[in-house]
Amino acid sequence: MSGPSQDSVLEGLTGELRRGSLVIAVLCGLQEERSGGALKVRLADSGVSITEGALYPMLRRLEVQGLLQSQWRMHDSRKKRFYLLTPDGQRARDFLLSNWRTFDTAFEGLRS
Amino acid sequence: MSGPSQDSVLEGLTGELRRGSLVIAVLCGLQEERSGGALKVRLADSGVSITEGALYPMLRRLEVQGLLQSQWRMHDSRKKRFYLLTPDGQRARDFLLSNWRTFDTAFEGLRS
Repeated sequence: MSGPSQDSVLEGLTGELRRGSLVIAVLCGLQEERSGGALKVRLADSGVSITEGALYPMLRRLEVQGLLQSQWRMHDSRKKRFYLLTPDGQRARDFLLSNWRTFDTAFEGLRS
Repeated sequence: MSGPSQDSVLEGLTGELRRGSLVIAVLCGLQEERSGGALKVRLADSGVSITEGALYPMLRRLEVQGLLQSQWRMHDSRKKRFYLLTPDGQRARDFLLSNWRTFDTAFEGLRS
């Protein structure tokens, strides 16, 4: 049987996993107020790379959804937008992390 | 600002996370050959519930992608289709689990 290439299959599956996981990473990274640039660096330091082209639309979406709030501030003589979790954002982060833990425990159990 | 309801926001984010995670759970559950019904029970026992309407299309898709193979067998006097990981499926599972671990470690780091 000639199916899709394994590279494109893995890419698709990894992309699916990444979409849900990146949101959790962003929510975890905004417990303290940070600019988009500082968040990007913090994510990279933690092993999660994300382009600005992916990060900023996600921040905007999460703000529209009420999970983040943002504010323009002066920083190093430049105006920058800073982001912070709202109480709803904290609840969403905790809820998603508990879903994550459920799957994590399941993977262990399924493999044993 | 009146945004979307928090219930629908959480539902959307949980759905995104679930899509990528369910595939890993299914791949982890088919290290040994199982029927769809037996896999569904095994997943439920591990804390992951999935409807037949979601499970069977996913099994078909993963087989088309070359990650699973299936075979009809007699079981309790009934013909049933049994599923098993292929070597490509084992590689995909390991790759996705290593992505999962990267995010898991990142979440810990981001919250500290």
